[in-house]
Amino acid sequence: MSLEEEILKRIKPTPEEEKEIMDVAEDLVERSLSIISEMGIDAEPIIVGSVAKGTFLKNPDIDIFIRFPPETPREEMERLGIEIGRAIIPDGRENYAEHPYIHGVYRGFEVDIVPCYRIEDGSKKMSAVDRTPFHTEYIKSHISEEQKDEVRLLKRFMKGIGVYGAEAEIEGFSGYLTELLIIYYGSFMDVLRASQRWKRGTRLSLEEDKGNRFDDSLIFIDPVDPKRNVASALSVDSFALFIYAAHEYLSKADERFFFPKKREAASYEEIRAEIERKGTEIIGFEIDRPDLVHDVLFPQIKKAKRTVAQRLNDAGFTVLSSTYKAYDDKITFIYELEVHTLPSVKKHYGPPVWHPNSENFLKKWKNIHKRIEMGRWVVQIPREDRDALSYLKRTIPDANLGKDLTEIAKKSFRVLSRKDIIHEHAMLITEMLFPLFPWQI
Amino acid sequence: MSLEEEILKRIKPTPEEEKEIMDVAEDLVERSLSIISEMGIDAEPIIVGSVAKGTFLKNPDIDIFIRFPPETPREEMERLGIEIGRAIIPDGRENYAEHPYIHGVYRGFEVDIVPCYRIEDGSKKMSAVDRTPFHTEYIKSHISEEQKDEVRLLKRFMKGIGVYGAEAEIEGFSGYLTELLIIYYGSFMDVLRASQRWKRGTRLSLEEDKGNRFDDSLIFIDPVDPKRNVASALSVDSFALFIYAAHEYLSKADERFFFPKKREAASYEEIRAEIERKGTEIIGFEIDRPDLVHDVLFPQIKKAKRTVAQRLNDAGFTVLSSTYKAYDDKITFIYELEVHTLPSVKKHYGPPVWHPNSENFLKKWKNIHKRIEMGRWVVQIPREDRDALSYLKRTIPDANLGKDLTEIAKKSFRVLSRKDIIHEHAMLITEMLFPLFPWQI
Repeated sequence: MSLEEEILKRIKPTPEEEKEIMDVAEDLVERSLSIISEMGIDAEPIIVGSVAKGTFLKNPDIDIFIRFPPETPREEMERLGIEIGRAIIPDGRENYAEHPYIHGVYRGFEVDIVPCYRIEDGSKKMSAVDRTPFHTEYIKSHISEEQKDEVRLLKRFMKGIGVYGAEAEIEGFSGYLTELLIIYYGSFMDVLRASQRWKRGTRLSLEEDKGNRFDDSLIFIDPVDPKRNVASALSVDSFALFIYAAHEYLSKADERFFFPKKREAASYEEIRAEIERKGTEIIGFEIDRPDLVHDVLFPQIKKAKRTVAQRLNDAGFTVLSSTYKAYDDKITFIYELEVHTLPSVKKHYGPPVWHPNSENFLKKWKNIHKRIEMGRWVVQIPREDRDALSYLKRTIPDANLGKDLTEIAKKSFRVLSRKDIIHEHAMLITEMLFPLFPWQI
Repeated sequence: MSLEEEILKRIKPTPEEEKEIMDVAEDLVERSLSIISEMGIDAEPIIVGSVAKGTFLKNPDIDIFIRFPPETPREEMERLGIEIGRAIIPDGRENYAEHPYIHGVYRGFEVDIVPCYRIEDGSKKMSAVDRTPFHTEYIKSHISEEQKDEVRLLKRFMKGIGVYGAEAEIEGFSGYLTELLIIYYGSFMDVLRASQRWKRGTRLSLEEDKGNRFDDSLIFIDPVDPKRNVASALSVDSFALFIYAAHEYLSKADERFFFPKKREAASYEEIRAEIERKGTEIIGFEIDRPDLVHDVLFPQIKKAKRTVAQRLNDAGFTVLSSTYKAYDDKITFIYELEVHTLPSVKKHYGPPVWHPNSENFLKKWKNIHKRIEMGRWVVQIPREDRDALSYLKRTIPDANLGKDLTEIAKKSFRVLSRKDIIHEHAMLITEMLFPLFPWQI
C-alpha cells in the first residue's frame, strides 16, 4: 500500500461514516423544508460545500444554504434565515461573515445554516456567499469519483503544512481552490509536481480566461465568474511554502507532511543558551484580545506586528525576526533584535542653513554643538529611549495599531522582558529561535 | 575706529610694504624679460593675481605668468616656462596644476612662475590657467580703490572661518570670486548682508548671463566667459558655513571671525567622560600619505572617508560622525559609532522559493534553519565580524578607496582603537566630540 493510500485510509470517512454524514445532511434539508413550509415563505434549502461535493474528510462541517428569491429585501432574508437556523439548532450561535448565519452542532456534526440569494448565474454581481452554490455545482459536475480522494489527500497535505484555508489567519488555499487544482492537474501527485513549475503570477483556468488583471501570487480564474481569482486570499508565503513542501515531499514522501508531530518547547536553558550564542535580545508586548471575528482580527494583528517592527527599526533597534500569537484572552507580539541598546544621543537633521527655519532650529537647540553636513544643520540630541523595551513602553500605547487594536492597546498594553517571554511563552520563543517547517518537527 | 577698520589695519600692507611688494613683482617681470630675450624666444611675462589687482594682504604670493603665442607646441611651452622659472628661482620646486610651474621664495616672498598661452579673449576654449590674465584684467578695470580694502576684509573673514580658497582641501571661495562679490554688492558688509538672502542655486552675474545650466550651490557667471561658473568649486558646506558666519557676525561682530583663536585639545579625562556619557564608540584607521598634490589627494581622502562610512553603515555599525586629518606622513580617519558590536548572526535573504536558484541556496545553507518571508528564503548566517574594528581590519585593506589610496592602504593600513585615538589624536577627537565653529573657539 502506497503512503498516499495509507493516508487516505486515515482521512476518508468509511462507507458507514459517509452514510451517516449524508443522512444528517438530508435530515437538515428536510427539517429546513418543513420549517419553510410552516412559515409559508418562498425559500429553498440546499447542501453545499465538501459534503455536497463528496470531497469531505472525516467529521466534516455540514453547510446548508437557504436560498431566497433575489427580490427579497436583504433584512428580511437575513431575519428569516436566522429564524430557520434557530428553529433547527436552538442552541446555535449567530455568526457573521457577509451575512449573519447560524453555527451549531447537530447530531454530532458542526453545522452552518446560511441564508443567501438565489441568482441566475455565477458571474452576476453578488456576494461570495451567494456564489457558493455555483461553485458546488461546478465541482459536482466536473470531478470524477477518483479525484474526490485526490482532493482529500491534497486538503490533508495542505492542512498538515499549514496552508489550508482562505481565512485571514491562514491566508492559504480554500477547499474550492483545492478541488479546482485536482480537476486541472488530475491528481494529488500531479498538483505537487506541477507546483514545481509555478512562480509568482502563475495563471490557471478551466474555462474561458478573459484576461482580467490580478496582482496575486497564484491566479486561478473562477470557472463560474472570470472576473474573480479563486486564489486571491493566498499569501505569497503560503504559496511559497506549498511549493517548498511539495518539493520536499516529492524527494522524500513522509506521513509527517499530512500529520505533523506536535512540537515540544525547548527548555529554559536551551533558549537562554541560544540567545547568548547569537548575542541578540528578545522583547515583546501583550494586549488584551478584542472580541472580533478572525477575518477582522488577524489582518489587524499582522499589520500591528509590522508597524511595531518598522518603528523599532526606525528608532535604531534593528529587528532580526518577529512573531505573534493570538491566545484566547490576549495577543502576544515578540521581536528578536540585533541592536537593543543605543547611545544617549542621536543624530538629528535640521533645515538647510540658508532656510528661514534655521532661525528656529538654532533657537531650539541653543546649547548643543552644531555641525553642517551637505548644507544642512546636524545636531546630536538626547535620545528618549536608550533601550528597546523603554521605547516600546513609551511609544506603543499611543501608536496607531489599526482600527480596533489601537484602543485596546491604550488600555491593556504591557511589555514583556526577555525573562517574561522565556517563562510565559516558551513554545512561541522556541518556534522563533528554532524555526522548523511542520514536517521537520 | 570700527572693528572692520581695525582689522584692515592688521591685514593691509603698509605703504612701505606695498612698495616693496610691487618692487619685487616688477623685478620678477624684468628678470623674466631679460631671460626671455637671452633665450631669444617669443614670450611675455605679466603680473597676475592679487598683487596685480591690488587686493593682496600682507605677505602675498606673487604670481608671474609667462605667456606664449598660441601656436607654441604645449611641450615646448611647458619646457621653456620651467626653464625661465628655474633661471629666476634656482632652488624652486616644480609643481603641477594644469601646467607644470615653478614655486619658490624670491626676496622673501612666495612666488609662482607659471607658463601659459596668450589667447585673444576669455571665452575661447582654454585652461583655467590661460584664463587667469583675463580675470586679472577684468578686476583691475572694474574695482574701485575703496573696494580693494573691502576685498581684503572679505578674504580675511573667509580665511578666518575656513572657507577661503577654491582648492580641494577647502572647497571654498577663490580670490577672484571674492573680488567679484565685492564688485557686485559694493562692500564687505553688503556681501554679508546679501548672503542672508542666498539659497542653494542663487545666481549672480555682472555681465550677460546666457542661461547655461549649473548645478552648484552658488552660481557667479564668469564675466569673461559666460559658460563658466566662478563658484563651481564651492562646496555646499562652505557655502552654508559662510551664510551662517555672516549671520552671526551681523548679529555680533567680533575679531575672532577674522582671527580665530587656536583650539586646545581636551584632556584624556574629558574625552573619555564624553564618550562614556554618550555611550558611543570611537574607532579609526591610518594609511601612509601618498606623495600627491593637494588637488589630487584631498578629493580621494574625502571619498575614502565616505566609502568607509557607507561600508560601516551597510554592515550594521551605524556611523554618528566622522572626520579625517592629513598629516605630513599619514592620513588618519576616525568614526564615531552608534552601534559597534553586533550579534553573531545576521539576516541573509535568498531567492524566491519558486526560483531555480532555490536549490543552490538550500544546499549552501543546509544546516541552518530556514524561514520564508514575502515568498523569499531568509536565513540567519554567521556574521564575519561582531565588532567594527575587526570589520575594518578585515575589509578595508582590500577595499576600493580610490585610484591612489587603494594601493597604499593595502600596504600601510592599520586600525586605531579608542585608546590609540585618544592618545595619538587628541585634537582631532576634541574637534569631533566638541565641534565648534572657528569664531566660537
